Amino acid sequence: MAVSPLAPERFPELPEIDGVTFASAAAGVRYAGRTDVMLACLTVGSAVAGVFTRSATRSANVLDCQSKLGSDPTGAAAIIVNSGNSNAFTGKHGDGSVSAICTAVADELKIEPSRVFTASTGVIGERLPHERITSKVSELVANQSPSKIEEAARAIMTTDTFPKGATATVMVDGKPVKIAGIAKGSGMIAPDMATMLVYIFTDANISQPDLQKIISTQNDRTFNCITVDSDTSTSDSLVAAATGASGIDVTGNDAFADAMHGVMLDLAHQVVRDGEGATKFVTVDVTGAADDTDARKVAMSIANSPLVKTAIAGEDANWGRIVMAVGKSGAAADRDLLSIRFGDILVAENGWRSPDYSEEVASAYMKNQELTISVDLGLGSGKSTVWTCDLTHGYIDINADYRS
Amino acid sequence: MAVSPLAPERFPELPEIDGVTFASAAAGVRYAGRTDVMLACLTVGSAVAGVFTRSATRSANVLDCQSKLGSDPTGAAAIIVNSGNSNAFTGKHGDGSVSAICTAVADELKIEPSRVFTASTGVIGERLPHERITSKVSELVANQSPSKIEEAARAIMTTDTFPKGATATVMVDGKPVKIAGIAKGSGMIAPDMATMLVYIFTDANISQPDLQKIISTQNDRTFNCITVDSDTSTSDSLVAAATGASGIDVTGNDAFADAMHGVMLDLAHQVVRDGEGATKFVTVDVTGAADDTDARKVAMSIANSPLVKTAIAGEDANWGRIVMAVGKSGAAADRDLLSIRFGDILVAENGWRSPDYSEEVASAYMKNQELTISVDLGLGSGKSTVWTCDLTHGYIDINADYRS
Repeated sequence: MAVSPLAPERFPELPEIDGVTFASAAAGVRYAGRTDVMLACLTVGSAVAGVFTRSATRSANVLDCQSKLGSDPTGAAAIIVNSGNSNAFTGKHGDGSVSAICTAVADELKIEPSRVFTASTGVIGERLPHERITSKVSELVANQSPSKIEEAARAIMTTDTFPKGATATVMVDGKPVKIAGIAKGSGMIAPDMATMLVYIFTDANISQPDLQKIISTQNDRTFNCITVDSDTSTSDSLVAAATGASGIDVTGNDAFADAMHGVMLDLAHQVVRDGEGATKFVTVDVTGAADDTDARKVAMSIANSPLVKTAIAGEDANWGRIVMAVGKSGAAADRDLLSIRFGDILVAENGWRSPDYSEEVASAYMKNQELTISVDLGLGSGKSTVWTCDLTHGYIDINADYRS
Repeated sequence: MAVSPLAPERFPELPEIDGVTFASAAAGVRYAGRTDVMLACLTVGSAVAGVFTRSATRSANVLDCQSKLGSDPTGAAAIIVNSGNSNAFTGKHGDGSVSAICTAVADELKIEPSRVFTASTGVIGERLPHERITSKVSELVANQSPSKIEEAARAIMTTDTFPKGATATVMVDGKPVKIAGIAKGSGMIAPDMATMLVYIFTDANISQPDLQKIISTQNDRTFNCITVDSDTSTSDSLVAAATGASGIDVTGNDAFADAMHGVMLDLAHQVVRDGEGATKFVTVDVTGAADDTDARKVAMSIANSPLVKTAIAGEDANWGRIVMAVGKSGAAADRDLLSIRFGDILVAENGWRSPDYSEEVASAYMKNQELTISVDLGLGSGKSTVWTCDLTHGYIDINADYRS
């Protein structure tokens, strides 16, 4: 599959993070001729935090990770992820597969199984051939290196069209704290939905509850603000690990939280940029709502509207559909107070098309690859920004295919 | 545009309804070479009830109709509808257009403007050239006939691929009460969203509040249970008129309410059958939910999921996406208790694919033009049925076009 036209030029240079090593292997879970398992090993004392899909039918792996997050972080830890099979809706077998994988990793690394975090992404409802994964654990442990994070990013891809990485360094007390993250996103997962997996590593020293608080807060401003098609995976997982190896305490440090935000936002945007069939990257900016909740309702209503997204695909400055999406959102709105902008172009105000509106100018703007749609509701100070992509023939091609 | 493959064989024979006459005209609001205005005249004493879009940005026409519904039904009444321009988001001009049309009709018919109900459907945000409509009012009044309901159905089409009609006759005290309805639906409305307009006429004798109660109740079981793409128009309107001309009182008569339900459901299904790009008509049946509200959440989550709808378009028995849609709905669900059927085929149960599941059999079923997806949540007695269509390249073609 061709690389998304919205992809970054290259995978970024990610720094090594003290206390974390990586390896990948080709276990043949489903794909041939590529790696499909990655193992990250975390030094003793690493804090591990996570946020997960709220789906009522979430996978066995997600349930297992959630049950382990509060555990005592004194031992070493590991994260093992496979692509090709999501182990979701696989009944009791799925629980057994998670357990077998955790035991194999724990035995090899001489750590507690309660400190092994798993994820699986790929086809739903097919029994995970976990023996193919467990048989690779020795090799994965033997090949560990702090420099192999890009390999790890590649091993967890399904039909993502590019690997996703982001990094930040923040100075605390004159010393550098490093953050490096990888993600896989909404490329087709033959044949199923677009699971998003995110792994973020830092050498900061921070307690598990404090790390959890940062990622939960920043998640609401990053990954929870993106949408490709409004569908929610049964496996979505974000896991952050702080090794403490830098010796630098970042508790309550705003610059660190901001840097985490930056890395998470970068990865979230890359997920949208690799949205199935995406040709446009769209920022939806809502201001002037009665409150932030209403602003988010309006922003998500616009970002998820198939009529808005197809208009964007067609480079059609169809602001009537924005009016429609505002109206259906359930948020307080007043036709005569709202204004709509495409980029800097004022499109509508005072309950009608702006007197200065030029279809020609607006249509020219819609040809850009990156678009901003701004709506001010004129009611209050509530605001929200979300990111999405267009809805194209490519999306239908990818998702209406038979499973193969 | 080709007629939808899901269209009925022909427009049904609709009976004349005593006390209602129709005419249509070619006013050239936007389209050339076709009729685009219909006027229905209702005899003295007709009860008029309605349900409308809940959009916060609803059109001037909708706001005007809502303000008039409670008015004293002693005089005659009229319904006038144009296609080609929705008069939505046209600021104060829009209110002026509604007023001008109502006044013209009221003057010509010598009735109160408060008894004239309008609707407009078509492009959003363009000023309605209402003079083209008002100049046709004399002609529309002169041409009134009780037999022209099919003409009326055709005049309100935008890019619907077929006109929509339905009828029922119910015996009350040994005498026939007639119901006839027309609708326009979710064909593309160049270039905007799919407004749904429905007009139902009966010669029954019933008070306005009682008629309102019937259509509000039945609306929740019919038009509120269909979805093409989850987008809500700013103009959706359903107006029902009871002329009382049969002299038969249907107050509290269950058979009459059932017959109204039948007509409304028939029209609602026809709207789905003319869904933009639709090639499959899909019934989603949810049972065993904690309550009816949860059942509806699950049913709508499945019916609105782009991943489910593209799988159906691809004739892919992708039950994993049903699991996903159940999970994301927000309703209570338990992986191990839910079961999924495609038609009569048990696909999944006990948290996994059914042991008897055959991909071949399920794939053969998906080739049908009419499909039923059933989910039993195994939790309680809540149930809900909704209807939808698939998501195809046709939808993208229609909606990603430039406005023309």
